[in-house]
Amino acid sequence: MAERFEEDALRAVGVRIDAEHPKGIIFDPHQPQLRVTDLGAVRGDGIFETMLVVSGGVRKFAPHLDRLRRSAEIIEIGLPPEESWRAAVELGLEEFRTRRGLPEEISVRLTATRGVDGEPASEDPRWSGTYWVLLTPVSESMQAARGKPISVMLLDRGYDSTASARAPWLMLSAKTLSYAVNMAAYRWAAKHGHDDVVFHTSDGQVLEAPTSTLLMLSHAEDGRPQLTTPTLRTGILPGTSQGAIFAAAQRKGWGLRYGPITPEQLRSAEHAWLISSVRLASPIRQIDEAQMQVSESYTQQLMEFLAEDLALTYPREV
Amino acid sequence: MAERFEEDALRAVGVRIDAEHPKGIIFDPHQPQLRVTDLGAVRGDGIFETMLVVSGGVRKFAPHLDRLRRSAEIIEIGLPPEESWRAAVELGLEEFRTRRGLPEEISVRLTATRGVDGEPASEDPRWSGTYWVLLTPVSESMQAARGKPISVMLLDRGYDSTASARAPWLMLSAKTLSYAVNMAAYRWAAKHGHDDVVFHTSDGQVLEAPTSTLLMLSHAEDGRPQLTTPTLRTGILPGTSQGAIFAAAQRKGWGLRYGPITPEQLRSAEHAWLISSVRLASPIRQIDEAQMQVSESYTQQLMEFLAEDLALTYPREV
Repeated sequence: MAERFEEDALRAVGVRIDAEHPKGIIFDPHQPQLRVTDLGAVRGDGIFETMLVVSGGVRKFAPHLDRLRRSAEIIEIGLPPEESWRAAVELGLEEFRTRRGLPEEISVRLTATRGVDGEPASEDPRWSGTYWVLLTPVSESMQAARGKPISVMLLDRGYDSTASARAPWLMLSAKTLSYAVNMAAYRWAAKHGHDDVVFHTSDGQVLEAPTSTLLMLSHAEDGRPQLTTPTLRTGILPGTSQGAIFAAAQRKGWGLRYGPITPEQLRSAEHAWLISSVRLASPIRQIDEAQMQVSESYTQQLMEFLAEDLALTYPREV
Repeated sequence: MAERFEEDALRAVGVRIDAEHPKGIIFDPHQPQLRVTDLGAVRGDGIFETMLVVSGGVRKFAPHLDRLRRSAEIIEIGLPPEESWRAAVELGLEEFRTRRGLPEEISVRLTATRGVDGEPASEDPRWSGTYWVLLTPVSESMQAARGKPISVMLLDRGYDSTASARAPWLMLSAKTLSYAVNMAAYRWAAKHGHDDVVFHTSDGQVLEAPTSTLLMLSHAEDGRPQLTTPTLRTGILPGTSQGAIFAAAQRKGWGLRYGPITPEQLRSAEHAWLISSVRLASPIRQIDEAQMQVSESYTQQLMEFLAEDLALTYPREV
């Protein structure tokens, strides 16, 4: 019984949204839900966002929704209104509460696809595709891994720094489902003994990691900490966690900078991290063969920035 | 009744294959079949092939299977043995026959995904993912479009010609499900009044179309027709239709060449086509603003090469 109890508590919850269910309808993610003709499955033709729920409060709901909307505009698919996504997330959380109490942390993934080829789900373009929310309790191993120093491998992303600007059809700044290259980069790094990847352009600018944002810290001449993250002009994703950290750090008087960054500058930073919504801040201890200094206190500070950022947190409605 | 009859005849047939059903099991593609946690749908993490069945005979079965296997090796997923794929295709064709007779032409798509994250479908790596075959009657509009002259737009693929060799994690020569960029390129071309796209590298070599292979024809000094297709060294997909055409043309004594091709050389070709398994040969009548000469007779000849290529055709077993 105890085992069964735990299993149920850890099971993911799915919520579909469509024109008939604008506030969402629960489904069991262990059962088939998608047709094989859904363009999300046929061609990775869709978009997603992953965010973190802590104690029933969704972190950075608005920035994630903004980025989802931006991705939808770039790939030109319809998207249900924000209140539907909010209602669907709330419905999923309520399902956990009803079942046996809310897990302390839940990872929430919003997905939107172009729908089934030639068969729009609705005449209304806002509902023409396939939309769902998947809520998965964050595993203990993931929680334990947070803040642990990592080794990263620099890998060429194949594009130069101007590709995004001159070739908008590459949609570099949309968060699409077409993530096969990101996954291949992870496998490549793992085979070479590293934990993660930092991509760089073919002309030598560091970009981002396959599923997180790069952040560097050094001290300005006046002694203030200064955070630097790669410029968005290369077409990398604007990081919602990086945005929340910048907002909190600014309130504290830290310096902030977006810039083109070379691998050499990255290695010369006092400290560097990979930042993402669920894994939070992972300090980089090694870049290829080069060692980096890890700061436990600054790592802790970044985690606190992400937790304190109430202005960007969607409050739990009970 | 007549309408119902026609609808049934045009409905697609799905065949899933797994360790318990190594010869396949029929499913209705109008019903959900995939979990939202399948990595094919989560991250475009899978591979596919599309081939053509004419009068019950599968064209180029072996080359498509070879390329599927090569894609599986590159992205490192398990793949059922060839006899399973063959049995599944046969089962799907038999379903059509039983239902109301085989349509003259059927498009057959083989798909393999990495399966559900953290839950391999089988301990046996050959069966660890999700595998299915989708058989769809070729529409009359698609059949009518064959051989029709098209206008193409040259678009930068963002990579230079050495990216594939120096960055294998980009998996340029695997036919993955991560096709969002290919679809975006189509939309871009359509908005600019073109029918299709020819990608080129950032350093000026023409590559391939989003879902077909580029083929050029000129005459050698001795008067023989000479076919040229872009070199595979840039990481483009080896075209199965281009391969079949080359094999047939060689038997006829034509010249054959793989080469780096510049946009200027493409525009200077006597004739050019986009070639693919279902659309066959589409003569290019315009490249950006430049007009091209269309040859009906050579287009017809290429179609015949594709039809005659018995050595590469999987014979119907009845």
